Amino acid sequence: MSGKNWRIGVAGLGTVGGGLLNFLSDRPGFAPAGGQAVVTGVSARSRSRPRPFDISNLAWFDDPVELAKSPDNDIFVELIGGSDGPAKAAVEAALHAGKPVVTANKALIAEHGAELALLAETKGVPLLYEAAVMGGTPAVKVVREAMVGDDIRSISGILNGTCNYILTEMEGMLGQQGPADAFRAVLAEAQRLGYAEADPTMDVGGFDAAHKISILAALAFGCAPNYAAAEIEGIEQVALLDIQLAKDLGYRIKLIASASRSDEGVLVRVHPTLVALNHPLAQAGGALNALFIEGTRIGTIYLQGPGAGAGPTAAAVAADIADLMTGAVRPVFQKPAGQLNPFTPVDPAKSMGRAFLRFLVKDEPGVIAAVSETLAEAGVSIESFLQKPVENADGVPIVLTTHAVAESVLTAAIDRIANLPSVLERPRLLRIARI
Amino acid sequence: MSGKNWRIGVAGLGTVGGGLLNFLSDRPGFAPAGGQAVVTGVSARSRSRPRPFDISNLAWFDDPVELAKSPDNDIFVELIGGSDGPAKAAVEAALHAGKPVVTANKALIAEHGAELALLAETKGVPLLYEAAVMGGTPAVKVVREAMVGDDIRSISGILNGTCNYILTEMEGMLGQQGPADAFRAVLAEAQRLGYAEADPTMDVGGFDAAHKISILAALAFGCAPNYAAAEIEGIEQVALLDIQLAKDLGYRIKLIASASRSDEGVLVRVHPTLVALNHPLAQAGGALNALFIEGTRIGTIYLQGPGAGAGPTAAAVAADIADLMTGAVRPVFQKPAGQLNPFTPVDPAKSMGRAFLRFLVKDEPGVIAAVSETLAEAGVSIESFLQKPVENADGVPIVLTTHAVAESVLTAAIDRIANLPSVLERPRLLRIARI
Repeated sequence: MSGKNWRIGVAGLGTVGGGLLNFLSDRPGFAPAGGQAVVTGVSARSRSRPRPFDISNLAWFDDPVELAKSPDNDIFVELIGGSDGPAKAAVEAALHAGKPVVTANKALIAEHGAELALLAETKGVPLLYEAAVMGGTPAVKVVREAMVGDDIRSISGILNGTCNYILTEMEGMLGQQGPADAFRAVLAEAQRLGYAEADPTMDVGGFDAAHKISILAALAFGCAPNYAAAEIEGIEQVALLDIQLAKDLGYRIKLIASASRSDEGVLVRVHPTLVALNHPLAQAGGALNALFIEGTRIGTIYLQGPGAGAGPTAAAVAADIADLMTGAVRPVFQKPAGQLNPFTPVDPAKSMGRAFLRFLVKDEPGVIAAVSETLAEAGVSIESFLQKPVENADGVPIVLTTHAVAESVLTAAIDRIANLPSVLERPRLLRIARI
Repeated sequence: MSGKNWRIGVAGLGTVGGGLLNFLSDRPGFAPAGGQAVVTGVSARSRSRPRPFDISNLAWFDDPVELAKSPDNDIFVELIGGSDGPAKAAVEAALHAGKPVVTANKALIAEHGAELALLAETKGVPLLYEAAVMGGTPAVKVVREAMVGDDIRSISGILNGTCNYILTEMEGMLGQQGPADAFRAVLAEAQRLGYAEADPTMDVGGFDAAHKISILAALAFGCAPNYAAAEIEGIEQVALLDIQLAKDLGYRIKLIASASRSDEGVLVRVHPTLVALNHPLAQAGGALNALFIEGTRIGTIYLQGPGAGAGPTAAAVAADIADLMTGAVRPVFQKPAGQLNPFTPVDPAKSMGRAFLRFLVKDEPGVIAAVSETLAEAGVSIESFLQKPVENADGVPIVLTTHAVAESVLTAAIDRIANLPSVLERPRLLRIARI
């Protein structure tokens, strides 16, 4: 409980930066471990832009790298964003100067985490990033610190609130006379409400969730983050019909980010996934984030909460600042940077799992027989089958779920089915969660 | 990342102590922050008792206080249990000797936390107790560290796995021709399976959950734990009929421990509570523990996992040991012991809430009118009402739920209803969760 005062430099004054300044001015004595935290300098793109908080008493830096190097602050908080450019340059400058860093930047940690960890640990300073994953919900702390006495087998969760919001809203449209492209309609409304960015690619394409699960995989399995090895599919192709048919079969479609470890290596994936309706992950709706952690000793931990927003994310940054104030020094990932396990990616084609397949077929005799024979010949075993009458459709949708099958076997079967004359379009494949 | 080796003394070699020794021998290099943790000395009641792990290479201490004082270990781990006696004496001795302490002892922290915190902080050494609440699920860490940048309004959860197991099993008996006293029957089976102690009072009486919520209240609200102020009701009086009628009304009965803060002060309660079936807490079945944390900035965090067992609890102790190895120094509760807020208990009689009331009445005209008139005169407003036909009963059970009402108004109304000639026994009151 030192009486030390910590002077903080904040680079980036958007939603989270503003939330942090508001928080620290609301709680002037913020000092969970004694001492006091006070913002002394800031940097952002525009000094004069109108803001709902006052920066006139703070030292201004046009260049975040200069703020990071400045001897007038003891902690550098990076809230600029982006995997490269000024964010990376400023974090590196702060670490080089022997200054602890707090960042909310998932892209930076997922893509350059190993080298930054080495730099931070060489300099003996913490690099913390709680706000990078699940915003205000302490996923990083739970995996890094609470599960440190466990051997984690797998992690899976809902790590992107925008996608979860869109999928939840799409489900709400079932049974209504909705627009032809439900995804685009809901996305446009989410953009209008500020729940989705003007360029939504990072979110709806699954890239944001992939950054986050890459970070959690590093913490869980003691390897360097390897974003490049993540297999990524977004939610752009999820149709209302998929959501309806999944529900009829007892599932809800969620964008699930997962990381699992086996003797072969590590598999990190993001894709739309069918989750059984009674599973907690299926019940986390709207913009919620949720995480399921399976360990060999502890068993299963489930964590759910807000994944974004000024209040929650700023609170996560503040929690990291509080951690710094305790004097704790931990490895940036599970182990010291020089001892991290090699990240050996597992070939997704070899991974086993259950699948949901949707076909659009001609309404004529023998179609179902042809599809099921093709699957049987390929070695894919059908678990359930559903055909619903559809009015005025170009074809008849049929859907089936399979028993566990290797992904390579499944895609080979799909290729053959796609070529059947009675099948009108390439079958739609969605995975069913193992959890 | 110091290379320091930490020598650990472990007092208490029961389930958790054995789990810890097994863990540290499975993971000889356990050193999340560098260095190494190695057990050097142990103490327990009997040295010669057969154990599934080897202690022959470890220094033996008949007296845990001597182990706590010994210069041959750097960390003292207390797994003896009990709020007083040798556990307290040994923890005090270790702290007096300037030695960090890790304990799983909820009774000790809940009943003597304030004085131990003062001693630990005077000596400048950490006192950690993650395993005291929710076993392997990091409730303490989440409330103490992750929510430190938030103002928590309330915490509620399922903190006793034995009670949750019993209530889940009782619900499984619905519709069967079960024993007259379902609670006693399930308890006896739980004892046979090792899920309940030979003397189950601490668990089924709600006292264990009250210890845990008292600790979480201290962490959440920055006050000293005040176990004596907790209002406690166990599950002994929960009848199968209550479980059935609650379910008919859309609720599940859980033993909920809650702590809430208002301008008047802090209210800490443990009682059987009706939780809406679609709420996550209603869906945490069996021996699971679960916690709902409501903050003003972050919003709501939900955490679920195992609350007991050798593996999970030992992993929580190991996580605390890892925290010590980082060099972190935090207050034992939310704030330094000398600055904790006074714990001002709120009079439960003034607390507002919805209620479930079950009556056994004579099967004769005018009974329902008499009951509802009495409630109306007392100022209690009925929300829903249910009467089900029951065969061969001594009377007819009726059940109703009320709108929010002050507890004092409600109990006064119950007193009057109990005296009505057509009411055969004192009405049964269960609270409905606010969450």
